Amino acid sequence: MRPVVVRNIKRADSNAIGTMQALGVSTVHEALGRSGLMKPYMRPIWAGAQIAGPAVTILAQPGDNWMIHVAVEQCQKDDIVVLGCTTDNTDGMFGELLATSLHARGVKGLIIDAGCRDVKALHEMGFPVWSRAISAKGTVKATLGAVNVPVVCAGVNVEPGDVVVADDDGVCVVPKKLAIEVAAKAQKRFDDEDGKRKKLAAGTLGLDMYNMREPLAKAGLTYVDRPEDA
Amino acid sequence: MRPVVVRNIKRADSNAIGTMQALGVSTVHEALGRSGLMKPYMRPIWAGAQIAGPAVTILAQPGDNWMIHVAVEQCQKDDIVVLGCTTDNTDGMFGELLATSLHARGVKGLIIDAGCRDVKALHEMGFPVWSRAISAKGTVKATLGAVNVPVVCAGVNVEPGDVVVADDDGVCVVPKKLAIEVAAKAQKRFDDEDGKRKKLAAGTLGLDMYNMREPLAKAGLTYVDRPEDA
Amino acid sequence: MRPVVVRNIKRADSNAIGTMQALGVSTVHEALGRSGLMKPYMRPIWAGAQIAGPAVTILAQPGDNWMIHVAVEQCQKDDIVVLGCTTDNTDGMFGELLATSLHARGVKGLIIDAGCRDVKALHEMGFPVWSRAISAKGTVKATLGAVNVPVVCAGVNVEPGDVVVADDDGVCVVPKKLAIEVAAKAQKRFDDEDGKRKKLAAGTLGLDMYNMREPLAKAGLTYVDRPEDA
Amino acid sequence: MRPVVVRNIKRADSNAIGTMQALGVSTVHEALGRSGLMKPYMRPIWAGAQIAGPAVTILAQPGDNWMIHVAVEQCQKDDIVVLGCTTDNTDGMFGELLATSLHARGVKGLIIDAGCRDVKALHEMGFPVWSRAISAKGTVKATLGAVNVPVVCAGVNVEPGDVVVADDDGVCVVPKKLAIEVAAKAQKRFDDEDGKRKKLAAGTLGLDMYNMREPLAKAGLTYVDRPEDA
Amino acid sequence: MRPVVVRNIKRADSNAIGTMQALGVSTVHEALGRSGLMKPYMRPIWAGAQIAGPAVTILAQPGDNWMIHVAVEQCQKDDIVVLGCTTDNTDGMFGELLATSLHARGVKGLIIDAGCRDVKALHEMGFPVWSRAISAKGTVKATLGAVNVPVVCAGVNVEPGDVVVADDDGVCVVPKKLAIEVAAKAQKRFDDEDGKRKKLAAGTLGLDMYNMREPLAKAGLTYVDRPEDA
Amino acid sequence: MRPVVVRNIKRADSNAIGTMQALGVSTVHEALGRSGLMKPYMRPIWAGAQIAGPAVTILAQPGDNWMIHVAVEQCQKDDIVVLGCTTDNTDGMFGELLATSLHARGVKGLIIDAGCRDVKALHEMGFPVWSRAISAKGTVKATLGAVNVPVVCAGVNVEPGDVVVADDDGVCVVPKKLAIEVAAKAQKRFDDEDGKRKKLAAGTLGLDMYNMREPLAKAGLTYVDRPEDA
Repeated sequence: MRPVVVRNIKRADSNAIGTMQALGVSTVHEALGRSGLMKPYMRPIWAGAQIAGPAVTILAQPGDNWMIHVAVEQCQKDDIVVLGCTTDNTDGMFGELLATSLHARGVKGLIIDAGCRDVKALHEMGFPVWSRAISAKGTVKATLGAVNVPVVCAGVNVEPGDVVVADDDGVCVVPKKLAIEVAAKAQKRFDDEDGKRKKLAAGTLGLDMYNMREPLAKAGLTYVDRPEDA
Repeated sequence: MRPVVVRNIKRADSNAIGTMQALGVSTVHEALGRSGLMKPYMRPIWAGAQIAGPAVTILAQPGDNWMIHVAVEQCQKDDIVVLGCTTDNTDGMFGELLATSLHARGVKGLIIDAGCRDVKALHEMGFPVWSRAISAKGTVKATLGAVNVPVVCAGVNVEPGDVVVADDDGVCVVPKKLAIEVAAKAQKRFDDEDGKRKKLAAGTLGLDMYNMREPLAKAGLTYVDRPEDA
Repeated sequence: MRPVVVRNIKRADSNAIGTMQALGVSTVHEALGRSGLMKPYMRPIWAGAQIAGPAVTILAQPGDNWMIHVAVEQCQKDDIVVLGCTTDNTDGMFGELLATSLHARGVKGLIIDAGCRDVKALHEMGFPVWSRAISAKGTVKATLGAVNVPVVCAGVNVEPGDVVVADDDGVCVVPKKLAIEVAAKAQKRFDDEDGKRKKLAAGTLGLDMYNMREPLAKAGLTYVDRPEDA
Repeated sequence: MRPVVVRNIKRADSNAIGTMQALGVSTVHEALGRSGLMKPYMRPIWAGAQIAGPAVTILAQPGDNWMIHVAVEQCQKDDIVVLGCTTDNTDGMFGELLATSLHARGVKGLIIDAGCRDVKALHEMGFPVWSRAISAKGTVKATLGAVNVPVVCAGVNVEPGDVVVADDDGVCVVPKKLAIEVAAKAQKRFDDEDGKRKKLAAGTLGLDMYNMREPLAKAGLTYVDRPEDA
Repeated sequence: MRPVVVRNIKRADSNAIGTMQALGVSTVHEALGRSGLMKPYMRPIWAGAQIAGPAVTILAQPGDNWMIHVAVEQCQKDDIVVLGCTTDNTDGMFGELLATSLHARGVKGLIIDAGCRDVKALHEMGFPVWSRAISAKGTVKATLGAVNVPVVCAGVNVEPGDVVVADDDGVCVVPKKLAIEVAAKAQKRFDDEDGKRKKLAAGTLGLDMYNMREPLAKAGLTYVDRPEDA
Repeated sequence: MRPVVVRNIKRADSNAIGTMQALGVSTVHEALGRSGLMKPYMRPIWAGAQIAGPAVTILAQPGDNWMIHVAVEQCQKDDIVVLGCTTDNTDGMFGELLATSLHARGVKGLIIDAGCRDVKALHEMGFPVWSRAISAKGTVKATLGAVNVPVVCAGVNVEPGDVVVADDDGVCVVPKKLAIEVAAKAQKRFDDEDGKRKKLAAGTLGLDMYNMREPLAKAGLTYVDRPEDA
């Protein structure tokens, strides 16, 4: 790892980002072929936010938030900051002061594979964070990392400028070169689901709607009438 | 494991279920002799629901929700679906569409030893789920499991038709043959607690109310006046 | 471990406690030199409470809450009860009845390195608890522990009478002999932050406000314009 | 849970047990339809043992080994003791003295969903244990459990007399009524594997030996020559 | 936390240490009243070592081993180094070079609530380490901690000079003021166990040897002859 | 994720690989600037192997080892297979038959972010595996993944052809374009360490050898003579 800050990054298409923000994580993740999802230990510090934006990435050392301060300057309006750590760490690298700074630049939120603190203040400010832990543990500013290099965050490789989508279901990352294609697929998937929802609400069985009975029988599923026959 | 669906199961007594739903998990678990409780990693995806009902059970493969689709048809009004997985897995096997389907049949809720997604939609729909994780991870429909066979879910063996009780404190399972007896014991326990609550609120010590001073002394508990004498 | 109850403990200065309660965990933890913080698995069972008070300590056995009953009698108004366990355990050692008892004595809250139950009732009662788990698992009253001896709770050594500060960010413990000094430092830190917050909200970069550019360059941080130069 | 000891249990067929001991866990688990396997946190305290035998089951309380003492009397030559705990616990419930006692009765080994201690002595004695932890934590003898009732151990429901198979790959449980059938299937599976092993060692690809190329193509697998075409 | 090194510490009685080293962790832990045991995630990096010695303590920051270098100078022959970390961390803070240095001073071993690396070299050197992880992750030397202050290591509060006992069963800490008393109790316990071992090996049941039948019956244990009566 | 197999990958320089295999993980990881290390839950199934080779990568579904069969054909002599999974999973995806097949092609070993079985047979065969679990859990062959695409394995992004180095300390990945540079730096680091080792063995303090006393003092480290002055 070289201690470097990349100033110019290519951000994903903003229309595609807008579409994905409206559709949410589960739909986008399916449209991407069921990939790109961060591990489920990443949870929102407060419920209800749904955002999407291009990633500004940070690689940080455990217990050290120096690079977040460096990254602020590289952020533009509507970006989402994504922080990966060189080792598993839950320290509270991010809190009210840094959130104030990002908020002032129009950053939409933070995805941090470490801890977050001042959660009450962040909620009042309306600044959303997805983190692996809530922790007041203070950090130092002693060792360099990097900004806008590829980072692995909660099991997903994130390139600067990739689309980050986050809501109550988790966090998904879409490579920027696939953004437009995935946004279109996700929209189509959403449109298709509406008809299904109505049918299911009316009592139609998924078994019939999806024509599952034949493949189930072919795979060997048997129905019996009594527990003792199982 | 045979890939089988059992069509007819015996469900626990519905009056007993009604009593247990009113009393909640902690009281029922005590009445069952402090057993039947699922591991505490099972948490509600939204707070405040309190339900009880007979179990329709599912044994599923990791990352595969085919059997949930099969199980829907076996559900009756007021049932609770319980899903165990053949291996630890957090994938989002259950979401809005399946919930719509279960809701349409009058199913009260889901207990799933895996992940759940679309949590905001499920909350709005008022469909309660207790799960080991919230995850948008999509699943396949490729490998058979079984429906209405005994399954181990979060450390508890659940037979089809057993009573499932779930609230903010967790999930408890009562064997169906014990349902009436346990409901009665739980009610008695609840009635007894009211008097205790009033005494404790008035300042009576549990030490005195439960006559603990003598057994404590007999067990060897000593009181000293200064830290250095400890 | 001797099974002993210490009756008289020295409690930390109450003015210092008042100051720390107003400032919260993150500020106090920094003022203590970034130490004293319990591990982040300790979470509030309901959000929004912020308390501080002198510790009444309990050492308990796994699955056994006998010592909590013993400790109630040793509590004074505004105390906070801290329970450490001789081994990792998530059983629901504490619930509504014990909370009623502590509440009647004016105890402010409970920090328990084990499980808690009746969370809905505790929320309605306004009694705050920080615990490692929510669990309905019932406990026995069979084996002695100790009250008001030093205990390790979630990674922190707590002496009776030490200051416990708890809010949505976690739980911090301040040795009673440092209480006044730490309260003063914490207040100063808080006062200083207000100015910083305003500057950051106005768009000043932390890089400039904290004069970080020079030490960053000295440590070897490099800026490049293109990803391929990283 | 009733505090009870069942004196007479039906043990699985001993020839079938012998076959399964010779074949080991992975083969038996496959023959059972890929079920019955305990969670992989169960590890042998020393490597190299491979055993099978009928289960004598124990339900124990956390931090309490009273029921193991009770169970010894119920054990016969070649039995395997299986202990489930009412809650997750790692205390060292079992050590040299109890092993001496079981060894004297001809018991083959112990499967314990809790901790084990005196591991060096147990290794020297040749007494194998599969446990969730190694821990010197001492336990009390204060609260009743049960012996020879069904217990859930590491995610598997075990009935008294069921076949337990254990080796370096883990622990598998076969219901006693299926023992003969599963032993035969396992033997067949083993016999079939020998031919496959030879072919694979000679360089035949599994792709060809198992005729996978067609189903892979049908499922949509594509081959490309350059990374940029992926 | 103040960044300080304490030069002169009082070490526990060396005869008592010798006794405890010969007896091992399980016996000493029982003699201490079943306390002082570190959490069972602390495991030896190689099996078979059994040591005891006075603690030289280190408080370290995550990912930073600067304080180990500082501590070496404070070590005397037969000491054991104990490292606690301000937050959970698995980085490989210790390896062959530091082991060479400690070995040269006659230090007996290391207890580290973090990671260790170069495990093959340490094994060849015969230098024993108990750690929470094996990890090659390199560390920095950037932030101060402290040496010879009280530290919490794997759930136990350790004062400088306290007795550390470690073997394949784990790590136990005995307060130095109790060393002589505990060594005597441990020896007595060991002597008593020999007779018990012989009786149990001869087939005497613990139920009889410990006179458990009456208290079991009094506690309510029932024996039944058939599973269906349980 | 597209279900694709990339046939032609560029492998890292073989001389550099040879150097790194001789030096081992800790040295290589440091030479890479302390990055590239997989999480420490990846452990060898048997101790003592030390390998390095170019990665053939697999992306697999939970509980499904179909893609390993596909990957075998893409392996060349001295390759190392690296498997990442789309979700956390411990199933035993790899065992004796697949090892026989890889062994026949001259593959050096396997790095699998899932489970492994038949550990005794693999040890006898001398085929080394680093895995997150040992588990006999059988898997299906039902859902496609990909071969020779970038995968995240245990927290590290691995491109096909990158250098994988593995020994008892863990697993490290070096991007193929940096292989020659990193091998040279690692060799230099190793050569430098020999002199240090000798000095330390002779009793020289690291404090002096590394000239740490001044920076420690500058950072604020204080020495006191008595515990009460700390």
